[in-house]
Amino acid sequence: MTNRKPALAVVGATGAVGAVMLQILSQHADVWGDIRLIASPRSAGRKLAVRGAETEVLALSEEALEGADVALFLVPETVAAQWAPIAAAKGAVVVDASPAFRMDPDVPLVVPEINPHAMRVRPRGIVAGPGCTTLALIVAVGALHAEFGLSELVVSAYQAASGAGHGGVTALREQLSLVAGTELGTSPGDVRRAVGDDTGPFPAPLALNVVPWSGSVQEDGWSSEELRIRSEARKILDLPELRVAATCVRVPVVSAHSVSVHARFEHEVTVGRAHEILATSPGVVLYDDPSAGDFPTPADVVGTDPTWVGRVRRSLDDSRALELFVCGDNLRKGAALNTVQVAEAIAAEFTVD
Amino acid sequence: MTNRKPALAVVGATGAVGAVMLQILSQHADVWGDIRLIASPRSAGRKLAVRGAETEVLALSEEALEGADVALFLVPETVAAQWAPIAAAKGAVVVDASPAFRMDPDVPLVVPEINPHAMRVRPRGIVAGPGCTTLALIVAVGALHAEFGLSELVVSAYQAASGAGHGGVTALREQLSLVAGTELGTSPGDVRRAVGDDTGPFPAPLALNVVPWSGSVQEDGWSSEELRIRSEARKILDLPELRVAATCVRVPVVSAHSVSVHARFEHEVTVGRAHEILATSPGVVLYDDPSAGDFPTPADVVGTDPTWVGRVRRSLDDSRALELFVCGDNLRKGAALNTVQVAEAIAAEFTVD
Repeated sequence: MTNRKPALAVVGATGAVGAVMLQILSQHADVWGDIRLIASPRSAGRKLAVRGAETEVLALSEEALEGADVALFLVPETVAAQWAPIAAAKGAVVVDASPAFRMDPDVPLVVPEINPHAMRVRPRGIVAGPGCTTLALIVAVGALHAEFGLSELVVSAYQAASGAGHGGVTALREQLSLVAGTELGTSPGDVRRAVGDDTGPFPAPLALNVVPWSGSVQEDGWSSEELRIRSEARKILDLPELRVAATCVRVPVVSAHSVSVHARFEHEVTVGRAHEILATSPGVVLYDDPSAGDFPTPADVVGTDPTWVGRVRRSLDDSRALELFVCGDNLRKGAALNTVQVAEAIAAEFTVD
Repeated sequence: MTNRKPALAVVGATGAVGAVMLQILSQHADVWGDIRLIASPRSAGRKLAVRGAETEVLALSEEALEGADVALFLVPETVAAQWAPIAAAKGAVVVDASPAFRMDPDVPLVVPEINPHAMRVRPRGIVAGPGCTTLALIVAVGALHAEFGLSELVVSAYQAASGAGHGGVTALREQLSLVAGTELGTSPGDVRRAVGDDTGPFPAPLALNVVPWSGSVQEDGWSSEELRIRSEARKILDLPELRVAATCVRVPVVSAHSVSVHARFEHEVTVGRAHEILATSPGVVLYDDPSAGDFPTPADVVGTDPTWVGRVRRSLDDSRALELFVCGDNLRKGAALNTVQVAEAIAAEFTVD
């Protein structure tokens, strides 16, 4: 083993997740040697601050990846599919936030609070992180699973606009400006007419609305986002038969996903014991006293690291099921933070022998 | 039996539901004799249009109720609890939209598409309608129950602001004006600080947010709204042991509630048969082709009568379970329309012998 600070490449530095990544790298203990910022050619030449230094963005190329020990991929699936293996072939350990390799049996899918051991075995030199909606719920659900044994999840997501990138946030803000100060939202389609045909990355207006769709159309009426929650939860928890039914709905929130979770377990549950577990689990904040107005909301937790959990109830008709409401920042734990956590654990491999 | 047009009293004519009621009364076939509008003393003397005629609002009193054959109560629970029995004692059949009598064993709880027979037996002279969230889902779920035999519901609601009355809509619109055109929604609590302490009838800001709470605090962490969905669904479907787990979340939508429904049945289900049932059930519109962008959203269905159903999927791990996304206008079918439907069925009793 070497004993030096590894060189880091951030691929996708100029996107919505990239912006949060640069914040986090500037805030966390500095375990990195050289940090290079990489993006698409149209963003090359921009200067961005990281660790207090203005750093010029390089265009994604084989040359730009040369010498990186760890490469964080914060780019769309197709870009990651093409370039992550190139970075790995050049010797970098890739940590990919995209869906490109999540279901590859030779790529571990890692949430450090739940399955940190999995990242040690990475035959392709690639470690993947799950999607932002899975990340919003998995830390809390995984902690409960360790105690009670998870058997089924029924989840309904309240997904923020930034899950669709900068374009999602821009579209939401533009739409809000069109509907604020009006009396819209009371007759069929009036919001749609005011917003016009350009609804940004969403298939319907998001202002004064919720949109029960995200991702691409898959078989039998499912969306790709819904199927991913199922396959990712199964892989991370190592429960290949876990029953999962997910519904993804976009809501007019800038950032931070929320999920209403119905979790059924092998063993009987109590709210008291669930509270104890959640209050002491790493990466989780229990915020659950409705009589005091204490429950998480996305606008209150955006920009924070943990998974916030409230509204913990035992199902009245099923002593093995819990209801939870969880919120997590989809750009932080949901993407950039989880990627950094994995990368920092890998960086530690460079400095111990 | 008489054979005349019954006299109607609308109690709560000036509220959010009352306004929709006056629209509906003006649009429907006119089965009523005299229509009198009644509200709290502070609204008395206002003039409102119904059936094309300006009608002066009377203050709620014993005298105002005198001679009404049918009295629609569109008022808060405490007002209904006090005044509905008085109206009934004066000979009116009361149709109450509030929670006051829903669980009274001597008061039928009626959704005309599902259990119209129940309204015939009304020992107290009162017929109740369920809450707006139950109404958003029960017509669709009831139709599927008739075929497949319902055994369990897990539902997560996306509740509109108008479920909290005029005050809810006003609060949402004011908050939207404060956040539109800003960069808020990206750091913890920035929306809360911009909106200030007055969040209207909601326990947290609703603009750029979702709030996992509605109703009052009940035992074991449940909200009154969540418990009502369970008890109302059980009573309407005559399934006293039905397993129901509900989570109510307020979203920044003006009107029309949405519900993500996981429904488990006694028998195996198919999406094809579910589509056939939903496409032919009264009061339901099937709108389900994601590849064409066809799924219901609240902003598209607000102001319409039916329950809109999309995103119909069979659970991948359970051949007896369906996922649905339903939308319904909480002021129309969710309150005023259901009340009128019951009242019109009762009016028919006056004109047949």
